[in-house]
Amino acid sequence: MKFARLGPVGQESPVLVDNGTNYDLRGITPDIDGRFLESGGPDAVRAALAAGTLPVLDGADTLRVGPAIARPSAVICVGMNYAAHAAESGSAPPENLVMFLKTPNTVSGPFDTVLIPRGSSKTDWEVELGVVIGTRASYLDSPADSIRHIAGFVVANDISERDFQLAVSGGQWSKGKCSPGFNPTGPWLVTPDEVDYGNLRLRSWVNSEPRQDSTTADLIFDVDYVLWHLSQFLTLEPGDLVLTGTPEGVALSGRFPYLSAGDVVEVEIDGLGRQRQEFAQA
Amino acid sequence: MKFARLGPVGQESPVLVDNGTNYDLRGITPDIDGRFLESGGPDAVRAALAAGTLPVLDGADTLRVGPAIARPSAVICVGMNYAAHAAESGSAPPENLVMFLKTPNTVSGPFDTVLIPRGSSKTDWEVELGVVIGTRASYLDSPADSIRHIAGFVVANDISERDFQLAVSGGQWSKGKCSPGFNPTGPWLVTPDEVDYGNLRLRSWVNSEPRQDSTTADLIFDVDYVLWHLSQFLTLEPGDLVLTGTPEGVALSGRFPYLSAGDVVEVEIDGLGRQRQEFAQA
Repeated sequence: MKFARLGPVGQESPVLVDNGTNYDLRGITPDIDGRFLESGGPDAVRAALAAGTLPVLDGADTLRVGPAIARPSAVICVGMNYAAHAAESGSAPPENLVMFLKTPNTVSGPFDTVLIPRGSSKTDWEVELGVVIGTRASYLDSPADSIRHIAGFVVANDISERDFQLAVSGGQWSKGKCSPGFNPTGPWLVTPDEVDYGNLRLRSWVNSEPRQDSTTADLIFDVDYVLWHLSQFLTLEPGDLVLTGTPEGVALSGRFPYLSAGDVVEVEIDGLGRQRQEFAQA
Repeated sequence: MKFARLGPVGQESPVLVDNGTNYDLRGITPDIDGRFLESGGPDAVRAALAAGTLPVLDGADTLRVGPAIARPSAVICVGMNYAAHAAESGSAPPENLVMFLKTPNTVSGPFDTVLIPRGSSKTDWEVELGVVIGTRASYLDSPADSIRHIAGFVVANDISERDFQLAVSGGQWSKGKCSPGFNPTGPWLVTPDEVDYGNLRLRSWVNSEPRQDSTTADLIFDVDYVLWHLSQFLTLEPGDLVLTGTPEGVALSGRFPYLSAGDVVEVEIDGLGRQRQEFAQA
């Protein structure tokens, strides 16, 4: 199943996207959020779809596409999780998983305009596989337990300001990861039964020119390891978003210019959809 | 005014603490949260108190003291913000403000038992002045504008696991800052009119022995600067919690042992109250 959220900022309606039709889920849940995901909401939707009782959402094609999930309680990110990206960033592959956080209010719609922050000269893109937590996870016994806690997968763009992240940060990256709109998420939350999450092609483009083109098969720490590992250090909550890291091909490499007002970034993961953001000056 | 939240985890009632009496605020707001703070809630409480219309909360003395604020959308922390603490941590005072994040689900009651994480040998305390945001703050013009966005102040204990933070983190501190219960907050949210926030004594004890004893007058980046600076990099939301850094006197210095099961930590800031946590093994 593919879930989405359609409507103006803060007033998105939950929908099921099935064979091109947008079904209105407001009769089942007010939102695609942790409560819906942990309480059997997806199963209820699946049953209602099979029973033919879901109404179609009128005028869905005219609505803005919001982030695929409601604002999470946390956005937990893995850094340097593709060897070639670590190399282009001037780092060796990490021995230990590197975790950092974005503020949850960065989560935005996949086609929303992104504002380049004031004072920025190094705004950069990062296509990433996002994992959405379905049920609370703490001290998982093994990586094999992780899948039971996954509600689904999303495309995410972990937008970053490299000077904020590296030059004026004292070494803590979050300062360059939290500007408003720095986390386009969606268009869809796709349930695990439809996703071969260990082997997904992920790509990005700037002004239609290719930038990143890799596969989640190249992850240093794979999805199952990531959730198991994180659960040793914090509690993952239903609805939380885990970003698994970005592959090579970002501006930080020195191979491409940073973003300017008027640029258009597209990011895509096979089966999870495609995003498109125009950039403007804050 | 002093606000608090009393009751079992997840079922706390909002109260006003005035001259030792706990007034029930459920007739005015369901919680001490961003919506209450940004929508004139504190003014409504002040008026109701003056009018004598607030009911007393029966049995308040028998209730658990919850965190002074509902779970925030973000917990934003300043690192190395006292010169003597930077020195004891082996660092020079930072040229730029160092920002990192804790997950919001770390926020816990000021007297709740804290669990030492599995695999931990270096769990540490950090008394800090916490600032609670009252109204959204983005791109403030100057530090002088910060006070208009402050709802009040709290005592916070920024509990940290130093190996998680420093040894197995790849340099990003959040891994050692997010274990469950690692952010006791309260007992009170105290409004700015009652707080000389640039000159507050803050102290900690372990098993009644003194550890930290400093003043916010020693902050490298003061409260007004902190909010102004952060607002250039992210949007501060109503109800968010900003931790302003800890002074010298933590175990990381090498002068004191790390925490073990059975230890009791107390932290206090003059006028903002005192916390007490027993530590146990997770």
